[in-house]
Formats: sequence, C-alpha cells, structure tokens
Amino acid sequence: MNNIVLEKVTQAQSILDELNIDLWLTLVRETSAGGDPVLPLIYGLDLTWTSALILTRTRESIIILGALEAEAARRTGAYQQVIAYHQSIRPDLLAVLQRLDPKIIAINYSLNDVHADGLTHGMHQLLLGYLLGTPFANRLVSAEQIHAALRGRKTPSEVAHLQRAINTTLKIYAQTFEQVKVGMTEIEIAELMHRATAAFGLVEAWGYEHCPAVNAGPDSSAGHAGPTEIRLQPGHLLHFDFGVRQDGYCSDIQRMGYALRPGESAPPPAVQKAFQTAVLAIQKTVEQMKPGMTGAALDAICREIVVDNGYPEFMHATGHHLGRSVHDGAGVIGPLWERYGDTPNYRLEAGHVYTVEPSIYVPGYGTVGIEEDVLVTENGAQYLGAPQTELILIRS
Amino acid sequence: MNNIVLEKVTQAQSILDELNIDLWLTLVRETSAGGDPVLPLIYGLDLTWTSALILTRTRESIIILGALEAEAARRTGAYQQVIAYHQSIRPDLLAVLQRLDPKIIAINYSLNDVHADGLTHGMHQLLLGYLLGTPFANRLVSAEQIHAALRGRKTPSEVAHLQRAINTTLKIYAQTFEQVKVGMTEIEIAELMHRATAAFGLVEAWGYEHCPAVNAGPDSSAGHAGPTEIRLQPGHLLHFDFGVRQDGYCSDIQRMGYALRPGESAPPPAVQKAFQTAVLAIQKTVEQMKPGMTGAALDAICREIVVDNGYPEFMHATGHHLGRSVHDGAGVIGPLWERYGDTPNYRLEAGHVYTVEPSIYVPGYGTVGIEEDVLVTENGAQYLGAPQTELILIRS
Repeated sequence: MNNIVLEKVTQAQSILDELNIDLWLTLVRETSAGGDPVLPLIYGLDLTWTSALILTRTRESIIILGALEAEAARRTGAYQQVIAYHQSIRPDLLAVLQRLDPKIIAINYSLNDVHADGLTHGMHQLLLGYLLGTPFANRLVSAEQIHAALRGRKTPSEVAHLQRAINTTLKIYAQTFEQVKVGMTEIEIAELMHRATAAFGLVEAWGYEHCPAVNAGPDSSAGHAGPTEIRLQPGHLLHFDFGVRQDGYCSDIQRMGYALRPGESAPPPAVQKAFQTAVLAIQKTVEQMKPGMTGAALDAICREIVVDNGYPEFMHATGHHLGRSVHDGAGVIGPLWERYGDTPNYRLEAGHVYTVEPSIYVPGYGTVGIEEDVLVTENGAQYLGAPQTELILIRS
Repeated sequence: MNNIVLEKVTQAQSILDELNIDLWLTLVRETSAGGDPVLPLIYGLDLTWTSALILTRTRESIIILGALEAEAARRTGAYQQVIAYHQSIRPDLLAVLQRLDPKIIAINYSLNDVHADGLTHGMHQLLLGYLLGTPFANRLVSAEQIHAALRGRKTPSEVAHLQRAINTTLKIYAQTFEQVKVGMTEIEIAELMHRATAAFGLVEAWGYEHCPAVNAGPDSSAGHAGPTEIRLQPGHLLHFDFGVRQDGYCSDIQRMGYALRPGESAPPPAVQKAFQTAVLAIQKTVEQMKPGMTGAALDAICREIVVDNGYPEFMHATGHHLGRSVHDGAGVIGPLWERYGDTPNYRLEAGHVYTVEPSIYVPGYGTVGIEEDVLVTENGAQYLGAPQTELILIRS
C-alpha cells in the first residue's frame, strides 16, 4: 500500500540492532486530533483508540489496536501481527511484553526532539498504570535516538520525493518573479504563489497564512508573520520564504528580489554586500558539510562569516532537517542556545537533508534571507536545486 | 482576526472563575508537527518554539513565545500581553508566575480526555525543570475540566458553523443517493462523495481514505476501514459514514440505503426491523437528553433498546462530542469500558453537540448504522438536520 512505510519499518528494525534496543513501543490515540509525528513514517494512517506499534530487533512487527481499525491495519501490510481489542489494550499489551521480555523498551518521548515526543503526558501516566507490578516500568527509555536515525536517514525514495517538491517550488518561484510588480501589496504577491500552488494541485508546506512569508522593504517584519498591506516600492528588498507539500514531503526555500529605483541598473552596494555575504555563508557552510560533524560546529561556520562581514548575528539556527515536516525534528544546525536543547550536538549522517538559511537585515532596504535545501552524502553535500547566487531585479 | 478565538478566550476566563482555578497554562511547541488540540480554540495559528498561553481568572491573557512569531501573535488581538524571547522561555515564564503567584496552575494534560492531553511527556519534564526550586511545581493540576467546559459548550457562532457543515453534508448525501447504482464498487461510490465534497470547496472531516466509509452488503467490514472493490448487489444494505470540515467545524452523519432485489418493492422484514430499531433507539435517546445526565446513563438507554429487540450489543459508544474535531473530546455517550476512561461519567450541558449512532449487523444483508447530530439545550435536545427515518431504496 505505502512502500515508504514498509521501507521505514524495515529500516527501524536494523536501527534497533545498531542501538542495542530490544523493543520500540509507539503508543498513540485519536491521532486525527494531533497525532504522533512518527506515525506517517511507520504506519501511514490515523488511529482512533489507544494503539501500540511494536517493532523489535528480532524483526517482529506487531500492532495492537481497536477492533474497528484492524482491517485497515491488515491492508497496510506493514505489520506481521495485527491484534484487535474491544474494551482495553492492557491485556494484549502485557501479553506481548511478557512473551518478548525486552530488557530495554524505547518509548515515544523526548525532551530535546519535538518529532520524537509524540507521547502525551496523560498517555505516559496511563502506560505506567498498565505496567504497574511488572518489571517493564523500569525498562523504559526515550526512543529519541531511533527517531533521529529513522527520520534523518532518508531512503532513496524519500530523497526522490523531496527532490520533486523542491523542483516544483523553484518553478513556482520562477512564475512568481515573472508576475511581481512594484506597487503590489505583500498579500497580493502571496496570492500569486497560492494560485500557482493550487494550480499544481498541492498545498503549502506550512500554515497557509504564513506560507509564503513575503517581506517588502525595511518596515516589514521578517519571521513567521503573514504578508501585510505593505506595498513593494522601488528600493525595497523583496524576501520570500516558501515551500510546498508534495506526496507527503516538504520543500523549504527562501528567495530574494530587489526593486530597482529610477536610474538604478543594479542594487546599491549595501544591498549587494549583504546579499553576497549570505551567498558566501551558504557556500562555505555547504562545502564543510560531511557525516560526523555536529550541527553546532556547522552553525558556527555560517554565523561567523556573517559576523566577520560586519553584520549582527542572526537570532535563529542556520538550518534544520527537511522531510515529512518542514522542521523535520532530530538535530538542528544551530547554536547551543537553551531553546534548541541538546539538538545542536547531533551529528550529520549520509542521507540527511537540511536547509541552510542565514539572514541579514539591511537598514533602509529590508531583510536578506536565502535558504537552500541540501543532501548530505558520504563525500560531502549536494544542493537539491540550483542555489540563488544573484539578486532577482524587479523593474518598475 | 478570528472572532471565535476571542469568544473562547473570554469564555475560558469565566470557566476559570467557575472552577476556582487561578491560572491555566497551555505549553506547546512546533505545533505544525502535531499540536495541541486546544490551540485552534484559544489561538488559531501554529507556534514553532516553546510557547506558553496563560489565562487567569483575574482576566489576564498572556502569551510568551519565540520573537519571530510575536508580530503574528499581536495581530490576533487575543492576548493583552505578548512577551517575545530569543534564547529560552524560562526567565519570562518564571517572571509571569512569580508576579501572579497562582495557588492552582492547570496544565494541558489529561489521562481521560485526549483533546485535553496536548502536553507531551517530554514537555512535562521540561516544565518540571523550569519550575525546579520554585513553589509552582507542586501547584500543577490537569486542565481537563477547563478543556471539557470550553470545548463542549459551543458558543452561538460555533453552533452556526456546525449547522452549516451539517447542511452541506445532507446535500452531498442527497446528491450521492441520486447517483448510486447497483453494480458500482464501494470505491466508485466513495468517489461520488469525494467529487461532491471537492465541488463544495471542502475537505472530508476525517482521513480521505476512510471518509466516507462505504459498506455494501454482509461481507463488507464496517468500522474504520476504507471502501473496497466489493460491488453493490440487489439485497445489500448500503451504509455510509461521512462528514465534512467547513470553516474549521465538522459534521459526522451515517445514512442507509437498501438495494431492492428483483420483484421486491420494500426491504425484507429482517432489514426493516433492524433499521426501525436503530431509528427508535436514536429517537428515544434524543428524547431523554438533557443537561445533567451522564453519558453512561444515556448510552444505556440506546444500548438497551437494541438489545431488547433481540440484537447483540454494539461494540462502540452511542455517541461523542462534535466540533472542531469529529471526535471532539471531553465526555462520551458510552459505556464504562476501560478504553473510555472516566469520560462516560461526564455530564451533558446546554451547548453540547453530540452524535447519536447505534449500529446493528443484519446477517445476509449488511450493517445498519444511522448517525444524527444533536444540540443539547436547557430544555432537551434538538436535531441539527432532519433525521433519517426511512431506508433509501435503490432500484436496479
């Protein structure tokens, strides 16, 4: 049914081997109301009643779920054993654990990684209740390392999906820059991209109201606010942050234009210097990417180029994983600030896909932000899409 | 910006008063990856970095969030104080708590109610870390009562939204029954509804692959499995479970048809009796609905009519709240089975909107399931849409 789910379930079992974890238990309920971010990777459908997805290093795959959903689970073909219950999951869950007697049980919570932290506090309390009086309550650990490996290491079919979403995004950017005119509001410019996205039969990679972000000139607030009634004027930088979700995988790309003033044939030096500094910071960062580096070390390279060129430090991370989610969890290419927890210490691996996205504010002109999507390989990193190296000029 | 958010924030503050809770803290992060089900009610946008939404019985409304999202928060107009941070939420959160010194702090977790259980276990651990060495760690309680009251008591504009979604659904059913023909597969029949939904510019209320559920005849598995290649044949019951999401609110309605056999002008007695028993069970249940009743007491009325007419007990609840989600959390009209936790003991209140949905399997013919959506008022309950009282006949 869903080949990527089958690939990821198999991949997860070998990750358990590598990490010496006997059993991985993902406990979920009523996932249409929120849901565990790992579920699309290892199941692909919603689950209504309390359900347990169990993978073992001995290559067992078991799902325990409400009886009304058993048939849907069987049809996925992803789990060898489908155990259906009517009144409570407890007896079936305990029977499986007693048969397998795992010494280490990894469960779906994490302090650091939001994408590995799908278990709610209420469900954790319920689980402790189920396990009361058994030896299993003392064998629980966080599954965050499993999640990071499984989500981070994209299979070839996952990379192909990401590549398609990125290709579409670059086409939408090309169409948009052909249509943008001085005098349009940020909202009107965003509408061009919404229409192009709908014409491809796709949805935006994040909230419709903030995707794209469009920032025209120095008075527009960059960051995660939506487009406003501010009009693009000559002398404005025009900044976009945009992505699409295509077949379940996301792109995330920032692009830059500049609206020429009467008599200008090129952007002024202050704008050029900031833009070229951002380009250089991305190039040098991508050149240094290789398996084994920490996100923090890589972030420092990018941040330093910006600061060494006389600009203030940008107050966000240099980049993040990209995959089923725009912010795809696990490690971040970022500084060791408390808000990032331990995630900047995670190491790059072959198969990871990251954004690289420094930013520089240019007083009087606006925000320069460029964002490229890159794949880490054994030998370095490669761009998934041609990077922007020149400002796109908008003539009145 | 979003009038319902403003209504619900104000409603929440008076609920705090009623429940004698000083402060309600909703802690979230990276909500696009899953998110707290209460967020659409009290905020209406996604939040990326760890964010705290704080409402007090003294009518303060405070949001602490990552600086890049502060402008978006200000534009909602829902929070009087918008506090932006760069590196960590901890100092601002502690400063607010120290100023307000709440004796009881309700937080967003619950053992019973999945819609009140948005706090992940990892975030709960982080919160305990933030509060270490303060008196606040010992003042935490579950906010489930706040959530149940806030989510359950629909404001007049929420009821109007639900009514619109229900009206649309009944129109789609009418169109579908005009087009259904003997010989179509369940998948082809589902496609009629998908096309009608898209023509209204809407999406299905739950997962596309299972909405509608379509069950033709006795060999089709009812429940949450998707439509199959089974073809509608003369002598089959045809069962639908379907809803739409319109302006953020959901409908959830089941309807029944019967495909006449050659020579039949009416369904056979076994089919008629089961259908009329389900109709009667709904009527008697709705007649008894009033504020103050428990869901368990109401479930027993519906279940008993089915059993007293000689059918096996249905292995699901009689009904659930309906609102922003199809299963809208809080109390359930259901039996005291472990899988429902304490939720069947919750009491009906004016402003609650529920489904009522008994089911009966008729050997040789298929599943009878009818589902109506009703509003509880001070004086009883009223149908939000004309209930089905006759089987819709499909002629070859």
